[in-house]
Amino acid sequence: PSLITDSVVQQAIPSRATHGHKGSFGHVLVVGGSPPYIGAPFFAAQAAMRSGAGLVTLAMPDVIYPQLAAQSPTTIFLPLPTENGYLSIEAVKMLIEKLQTYDVLVVGPGLGRWPDGGHWLIQLLKQADMPVVVDADGLSLLKPHVHELAERDHPLILTPHQGEMARLLGTSVREVESDRLGVATRYAREHGVYVVLKGHRTVLATPEGKIWINPLGHDALAKGGSGDILSGMIASFVAQGAAPEQAAIAAVYIHALSGERCAVEKSRYSVLPTDILEALGQAISSVIERA
Amino acid sequence: PSLITDSVVQQAIPSRATHGHKGSFGHVLVVGGSPPYIGAPFFAAQAAMRSGAGLVTLAMPDVIYPQLAAQSPTTIFLPLPTENGYLSIEAVKMLIEKLQTYDVLVVGPGLGRWPDGGHWLIQLLKQADMPVVVDADGLSLLKPHVHELAERDHPLILTPHQGEMARLLGTSVREVESDRLGVATRYAREHGVYVVLKGHRTVLATPEGKIWINPLGHDALAKGGSGDILSGMIASFVAQGAAPEQAAIAAVYIHALSGERCAVEKSRYSVLPTDILEALGQAISSVIERA
Amino acid sequence: PSLITDSVVQQAIPSRATHGHKGSFGHVLVVGGSPPYIGAPFFAAQAAMRSGAGLVTLAMPDVIYPQLAAQSPTTIFLPLPTENGYLSIEAVKMLIEKLQTYDVLVVGPGLGRWPDGGHWLIQLLKQADMPVVVDADGLSLLKPHVHELAERDHPLILTPHQGEMARLLGTSVREVESDRLGVATRYAREHGVYVVLKGHRTVLATPEGKIWINPLGHDALAKGGSGDILSGMIASFVAQGAAPEQAAIAAVYIHALSGERCAVEKSRYSVLPTDILEALGQAISSVIERA
Amino acid sequence: PSLITDSVVQQAIPSRATHGHKGSFGHVLVVGGSPPYIGAPFFAAQAAMRSGAGLVTLAMPDVIYPQLAAQSPTTIFLPLPTENGYLSIEAVKMLIEKLQTYDVLVVGPGLGRWPDGGHWLIQLLKQADMPVVVDADGLSLLKPHVHELAERDHPLILTPHQGEMARLLGTSVREVESDRLGVATRYAREHGVYVVLKGHRTVLATPEGKIWINPLGHDALAKGGSGDILSGMIASFVAQGAAPEQAAIAAVYIHALSGERCAVEKSRYSVLPTDILEALGQAISSVIERA
Repeated sequence: PSLITDSVVQQAIPSRATHGHKGSFGHVLVVGGSPPYIGAPFFAAQAAMRSGAGLVTLAMPDVIYPQLAAQSPTTIFLPLPTENGYLSIEAVKMLIEKLQTYDVLVVGPGLGRWPDGGHWLIQLLKQADMPVVVDADGLSLLKPHVHELAERDHPLILTPHQGEMARLLGTSVREVESDRLGVATRYAREHGVYVVLKGHRTVLATPEGKIWINPLGHDALAKGGSGDILSGMIASFVAQGAAPEQAAIAAVYIHALSGERCAVEKSRYSVLPTDILEALGQAISSVIERA
Repeated sequence: PSLITDSVVQQAIPSRATHGHKGSFGHVLVVGGSPPYIGAPFFAAQAAMRSGAGLVTLAMPDVIYPQLAAQSPTTIFLPLPTENGYLSIEAVKMLIEKLQTYDVLVVGPGLGRWPDGGHWLIQLLKQADMPVVVDADGLSLLKPHVHELAERDHPLILTPHQGEMARLLGTSVREVESDRLGVATRYAREHGVYVVLKGHRTVLATPEGKIWINPLGHDALAKGGSGDILSGMIASFVAQGAAPEQAAIAAVYIHALSGERCAVEKSRYSVLPTDILEALGQAISSVIERA
Repeated sequence: PSLITDSVVQQAIPSRATHGHKGSFGHVLVVGGSPPYIGAPFFAAQAAMRSGAGLVTLAMPDVIYPQLAAQSPTTIFLPLPTENGYLSIEAVKMLIEKLQTYDVLVVGPGLGRWPDGGHWLIQLLKQADMPVVVDADGLSLLKPHVHELAERDHPLILTPHQGEMARLLGTSVREVESDRLGVATRYAREHGVYVVLKGHRTVLATPEGKIWINPLGHDALAKGGSGDILSGMIASFVAQGAAPEQAAIAAVYIHALSGERCAVEKSRYSVLPTDILEALGQAISSVIERA
Repeated sequence: PSLITDSVVQQAIPSRATHGHKGSFGHVLVVGGSPPYIGAPFFAAQAAMRSGAGLVTLAMPDVIYPQLAAQSPTTIFLPLPTENGYLSIEAVKMLIEKLQTYDVLVVGPGLGRWPDGGHWLIQLLKQADMPVVVDADGLSLLKPHVHELAERDHPLILTPHQGEMARLLGTSVREVESDRLGVATRYAREHGVYVVLKGHRTVLATPEGKIWINPLGHDALAKGGSGDILSGMIASFVAQGAAPEQAAIAAVYIHALSGERCAVEKSRYSVLPTDILEALGQAISSVIERA
């Protein structure tokens, strides 16, 4: 396994054309949210913006559109139809019709789980001819259907924490934690996906068997919402032209660095996802300037 | 009585494992709010996050869910059913079914008072097998039923200001203020609860008769919303593993320190609860660093 | 006429007891707002908090309650019943029943004008046995009824800008501007009210004929919302125990000082009411420290 | 073509009377927004405030009024009637009745496009006897009707990016980019309008054939929402008395300078429209002080 360092990230982060316009830096679509989880897709979308994407659209169940639209002026909104409070199959159709507008898809943050949710998700993923980041509840919904994605020929990036990894494998958290490198690597190879196994020393495993370890990050990141930021960042770097491996390398490192920097003043107790978002730019600057 | 000092707080504040994840730092449930009091449960929930809890769920009457969800991306939401505008007995059932998800319960901030509210609250408290912080309107609702809680074998932490203490005792504020130590100590012993009697020189009395006095704090904290922050902080430290006594010690001291620090620049007139929340992290840092 | 200076304000601003609690610093009621004017009562209420009031309740037409409650966690809310979109006479009854809860009333910011509005307002003012600040649309509604208030024996503080002053007098803005001192003084004496005639060199005239001139302030304050802050500040100082004259002296000076201070960095073009609110505390500190 | 410089902007930016009141600095009306695009008119309106306008009214489809009113206390709101989700012809009538209240109109940010939208817009523009800035979707709606505006005798300022310019001309982006100066100049002359062709080296062309080039700005501005800020700034300077050419000169330069300044700390990846808004005042100060 290789260690992610400043100089690795300096190479991995997509370079930006000074004369670029908003169309030059990609359009990220975040699909997530549910009545209990308003903040999750908001954090993913904001993180995509803060990491450099030119445009970000936030698609959510229509029932929470008013709450999100009241607090997030920087994103475009796409309310999706619901049935009994859950995203309906109409929502998949609506998304698929519009998918060509977007460069990358993040699905899962705060999405919730519902009986037909796995079917719902798989319909979307099968037709999404673009890199996709699956996070949070998206991973739980994906679990029984992961074999159906073998035919996809665009990158799939999974970002489980140890509990979600255990669920994907049908095993225990203890099992996962006892062999983080091995678990991530085997899953990535077997399913042909990128695995970002979050936690202390986040592991990135590629479908080809490459393994990266993130030396940064501590318990300032151990708070609800932190992971949503990471998925938005990965998508953002992909939207700007990075390959999935490079995007994930840059995202996990800068995300952790931002959390560490926030904790210097605010203590490791007190860092919120909103702080990390605000500090992303300075974290990026600090890495670039050390070049 | 013992004085709370920097070194006492350094011992009292729960330590954090660097490699911890959000599940390691506990899940606080805040139950509160009503149409006039939107901010109170918001402040308690934010304070719990800012003090280090890994997850915070905010449960509120469904009629105010839209307003809270539009301004608080960092918490999970649990809208509760209402009847004639008040929390219904269905809400208790819903909460009880989910209680095992949470490590600590805060009930009361902004909850309002209604005819059946005492009964409502007592049903919840009887089945909450976890430490509970009762604050604000929760205290008024609790008053006629406090004897029914004798059988509870988990800690109960009450955080009255002098007016609420007087109501609990059926006496006058003057009586309370004339013997703050005695009043708090007797009530704590008699009912087997922790009493945090807020005000100038906040007093903490334990069921065993231990007494602590907070030397910090001044009128910068004398503003609606300030107390809600304190109840959220106590719950947060308990969720992170502190015993109730230690959690309350750390919370009252850091809360007051944060208010004092804010007043240096903004004057004692102008400090808002939102300022205190923002400054909690720096207050924690300053105490820890003086170690 | 006397000039307001640092040392005058140091005497005029209400002193604060270090051991005071939120009940010690008064409860301000702001009545205002309408669908086009959401921010006006919000600014008045926030200003009252930022100037030291212990509690602030914001009463508004029920149709805009959701919007205000979604952005203002620091105030208590009192939605008022409406009829055809305007505050109904039921709203007066509801307010009058609750008036004993409050120490000072601000009425007018963003209230709008409607056919029966003058009658509505006068019913409220006649029964409000407390100091009242009438601002903005409240002044226009008051105009035809001002003689009906002769019997009130609690202070009435009017805060017109030159346009509102002209409307109160049935004259032109030019007339007002050509004799600001004379106009304010005569109106104050004749109607037994305090007049704060806003504008360049704000004038304060008391019922007894005392005149004060504010030397501070410039075009950084020339923006919608600025005046709403002033009315909230005056009410806040009264709620903390200042006499109306002293409250108005302190408010106009600190308000202007805050605007001037904001403009140093942000330029006079760019200062928003939200900036002035944030800077009130530092402006208070700077005046007090110069003592 | 002339280069915009500090000293040009120092002359172009409208001077402010120290004793001015909110009525002295003009009233901007922003018409925009649609369910997917909440932020666009918000940014334009905030930019108008941050650039010095005394009052700003934000008119939007009534269906998004709640979301905007919940996050923007600094503007006045004018909800407009909709039909099948789009602005109805009633909305034009309502606007026209009120137009005399405003000094400048911005139309287009986030407005969306609908079958009858071009007709809708043209009815408004024909009767708007005031300078008008048309931006974003407004430009697309305008395209088939631009010849109908020949009779207008008040300035029309168009602010297309390269894609919108191509649409206006019925040509390709490549064509536009290959001759930015020529394209802007010809369109401005031919239609008697001001053209602000945004992008790397923004071009301003006047109806008389004067051409200005903005040397500032880079990819920190390449994010959704950035352009909305520019249209609000131009309108704001016009409302304060600047001629359209001078307003556009000052706006494009200060807008770009603000973006550049934000990027110094936050990196070019991470600058959001909200950052640019916050920094406008400091950018104005820095230009003025260099005089």
